[in-house]
Amino acid sequence: MNKISKVLIANRGEIALRIIRACKELEITSVAIFSEVDVEGVWVRKADECYPIMGDVIKAYLDYEVIISIAKKANCDAIHPGYGFLSENADFAKACEENGIIFIGPKPEHIALFGDKMASKVAMKKVGVPVLEGTDEPIINVKEGEKIASQIGFPVIIKAAFGGGGRGMRIVKNKKDFVEMFESATNEAKKYFGRGEVFIEKYVENPRHIEIQIIADKYGNVLHLGERDCSIQRRHQKVIEIAPSPRLNNTARKELYRIATKAMFKLGYESVGTIEFLLDEDDNIYFIEMNTRVQVEHPVTEIISGIDIIQRMIQIAEGDKLQLLQEEIQFRGYAIEFRINAENPQKNFMPSTGTIKKYLTPGGPGVRLDTSAYTGYKVPANYDSMIGKLIVWSLDWQGAVKKAKRALDEYYIEGFPTNISLHREIVRDEDFIAGNFNTNYLDKKMQIFKLSGEIHIKQEEEKISKIISFIEKIKSKNIKVKH
Amino acid sequence: MNKISKVLIANRGEIALRIIRACKELEITSVAIFSEVDVEGVWVRKADECYPIMGDVIKAYLDYEVIISIAKKANCDAIHPGYGFLSENADFAKACEENGIIFIGPKPEHIALFGDKMASKVAMKKVGVPVLEGTDEPIINVKEGEKIASQIGFPVIIKAAFGGGGRGMRIVKNKKDFVEMFESATNEAKKYFGRGEVFIEKYVENPRHIEIQIIADKYGNVLHLGERDCSIQRRHQKVIEIAPSPRLNNTARKELYRIATKAMFKLGYESVGTIEFLLDEDDNIYFIEMNTRVQVEHPVTEIISGIDIIQRMIQIAEGDKLQLLQEEIQFRGYAIEFRINAENPQKNFMPSTGTIKKYLTPGGPGVRLDTSAYTGYKVPANYDSMIGKLIVWSLDWQGAVKKAKRALDEYYIEGFPTNISLHREIVRDEDFIAGNFNTNYLDKKMQIFKLSGEIHIKQEEEKISKIISFIEKIKSKNIKVKH
Repeated sequence: MNKISKVLIANRGEIALRIIRACKELEITSVAIFSEVDVEGVWVRKADECYPIMGDVIKAYLDYEVIISIAKKANCDAIHPGYGFLSENADFAKACEENGIIFIGPKPEHIALFGDKMASKVAMKKVGVPVLEGTDEPIINVKEGEKIASQIGFPVIIKAAFGGGGRGMRIVKNKKDFVEMFESATNEAKKYFGRGEVFIEKYVENPRHIEIQIIADKYGNVLHLGERDCSIQRRHQKVIEIAPSPRLNNTARKELYRIATKAMFKLGYESVGTIEFLLDEDDNIYFIEMNTRVQVEHPVTEIISGIDIIQRMIQIAEGDKLQLLQEEIQFRGYAIEFRINAENPQKNFMPSTGTIKKYLTPGGPGVRLDTSAYTGYKVPANYDSMIGKLIVWSLDWQGAVKKAKRALDEYYIEGFPTNISLHREIVRDEDFIAGNFNTNYLDKKMQIFKLSGEIHIKQEEEKISKIISFIEKIKSKNIKVKH
Repeated sequence: MNKISKVLIANRGEIALRIIRACKELEITSVAIFSEVDVEGVWVRKADECYPIMGDVIKAYLDYEVIISIAKKANCDAIHPGYGFLSENADFAKACEENGIIFIGPKPEHIALFGDKMASKVAMKKVGVPVLEGTDEPIINVKEGEKIASQIGFPVIIKAAFGGGGRGMRIVKNKKDFVEMFESATNEAKKYFGRGEVFIEKYVENPRHIEIQIIADKYGNVLHLGERDCSIQRRHQKVIEIAPSPRLNNTARKELYRIATKAMFKLGYESVGTIEFLLDEDDNIYFIEMNTRVQVEHPVTEIISGIDIIQRMIQIAEGDKLQLLQEEIQFRGYAIEFRINAENPQKNFMPSTGTIKKYLTPGGPGVRLDTSAYTGYKVPANYDSMIGKLIVWSLDWQGAVKKAKRALDEYYIEGFPTNISLHREIVRDEDFIAGNFNTNYLDKKMQIFKLSGEIHIKQEEEKISKIISFIEKIKSKNIKVKH
């Protein structure tokens, strides 16, 4: 046991605030860092201590030597990396260790293993996880690629070996398109990740993206916290996440739980992590990747399980044993998370910036809001466009969808466009309501959705203006209103 | 079955918004009313339609003829009264019925019965509920009162027969004080409720206030949704409410459930309602009163049970059968509600008014916020000082207290004093943390709590100002920060 008393949070925005909240509830002192443009960030205000990192505003959250030196200066005994930035950087995790600072996350070797998509496929295959047929090693040569693709059989997918987020990714339906697609993929991979290597695998048509949340301590206790359905994606980026999956049959569900926990036990994984799978229309399971960090979408799992994932993550890092049996974890109801992005649905989701002039948040029963936004908040142009997450819960799926509808309608952000209008369309769509969606859902629907921007906001303001002027008229003319 | 399609909400503030939320989730059109000073109320904005009621701003929510005429004009088929105002007015419920409008609440005869404290005691005794020894009829004569008090034995409590909320209420410890106290009680009752009659009953020392949430349909199905502990009171007004009670033993708990459901079944009660009890130090149970409406503190029960009480209330009014068995209702974890009042703890909790200049709300896991406040919201001086409710949840009691601490610390309201500093003291108090409290708790603690007003808010602002000027200094002088 290595009780943690002070944690530096090497992140920003809503996840920094989320980690501070966990620290406060565990009575751990929290230390924030912030770049020049993030001075007024809520996490800076809410942390017990805070340190600026001057200069390049993106590098501020990536420069691990500076971050570790701040942690040492502030007498932090641990660092939580959040998601993104340094969270899946094995060198950073190792550097923390070497400096006597607990890295709140998995062991560096696991981060390194799962950071390499090819190696992780090989490793997962060994511990009984079904993976997609594909290359065993990164490929850069187009001839070699073509040969392998033909062996696997089209359609295939080309993916960057050293990157993610949809960059350097191409689906090839026919052999004749292969050369062109391969070259454009490797070029893009090189541009974004510095390395052009790709791998090729079987492309699953109409798949659902189902992922299993794992929680494991240092003593071989591996538990799952159920699945999340993250099939609603736009350009391979998750948009909406759901727990549990509304249309997964129980046989496949149990099999996923079994495969995931067994693999993590065999690999000696510790901390929290997520194993991502694709499921085809016959419920065949294919491992795609493992995320060795807390995920954006962890709240849906927290709500249905009642378990605080970030707190557990910290406690595991302290050396706590999971005093919990799988059968004690009870899931209740359905939770849906909506990523709230500062982006313009009418301009092809171009990131937007600006200051929040008027801000009304959803609340009441079954609503959780994880956001660093507030009235007067200025969205910097330098980072990811996500400014928060709206999570709703209800005892049943239909109730959760209705809750989502009313909560999204309540969410009122004046100052810049957001993707809330997209979410409003989705929760009104029959296929979504019926749980009838896969990863192609949004691509198809985008053509019929009316992304009206934030017209409803103007309508709401007009309504209020009308009422006010109506009342002023009555008062000034001393008219009697008859009912 | 009498499907409701449009509901007028005869209330204001957070409960009006709460009912609108339920309507939206049930796909029912909602109609708001508002007084001149409430034009910018969030519930006015969020309702599908809204109607001003000009003139006296308090009477606006009490004038039931006007309200019913608006409901008819707007083609509403039902009215939800919320709490306070017309919610326990049997004449109003009857007038709704007579005008062909569904009153979303109990039958008028039950409202009338439980509105009369004496009659309700007699009725509850008959159906097996233990009540406090006391007068059977309202008393106005001091000699008669003295005789009865001597028979019951001191201490006794004098209570207004036709009122509530602590007005016209006196505890008399010795016979010699009786005459003076009786006269001051009847005078106060007359002043506030128009009628001076009081009743006298045994005074229970150090009692806990435990209440049972009942939900009953029109077909004799009566269920309980567990208990709430509302012992934390100030001047007989609830301040904090908890579900379940952290220190109630299971024998007493089951007995309360049994008594409450049996009584309501025998009386043919329908809709939701709350039976309030006092429990003495030996767990003896004494019925005090029944509230025939939804209560301010209903959210704690919603959270632990997962059941939406307002939605159920509407469905019951429609004639829905409760498709639910008692054993299907599962309680999970602990929920605590904090009433957020615009009042000044440093000036004896005098109501405060003003406009919210800066507003940061708590959020994240296990936090529910029911409020009509927002940045720019102006608290009118005309109504109850409660501007919202913060509700927290965790799997265990200690976790819920820690969650409360961090959520209360996050809640930042600039513009007028609130009672948040009182809540902050309470959640740090050892007796509260140990679940060791009764209805005298706050009276005793108030002497040791340091109600510093909102000093922490100033501190937070100063911290941010310091950071900003520090960064500006660095930038202007081009100083290099070393880490």
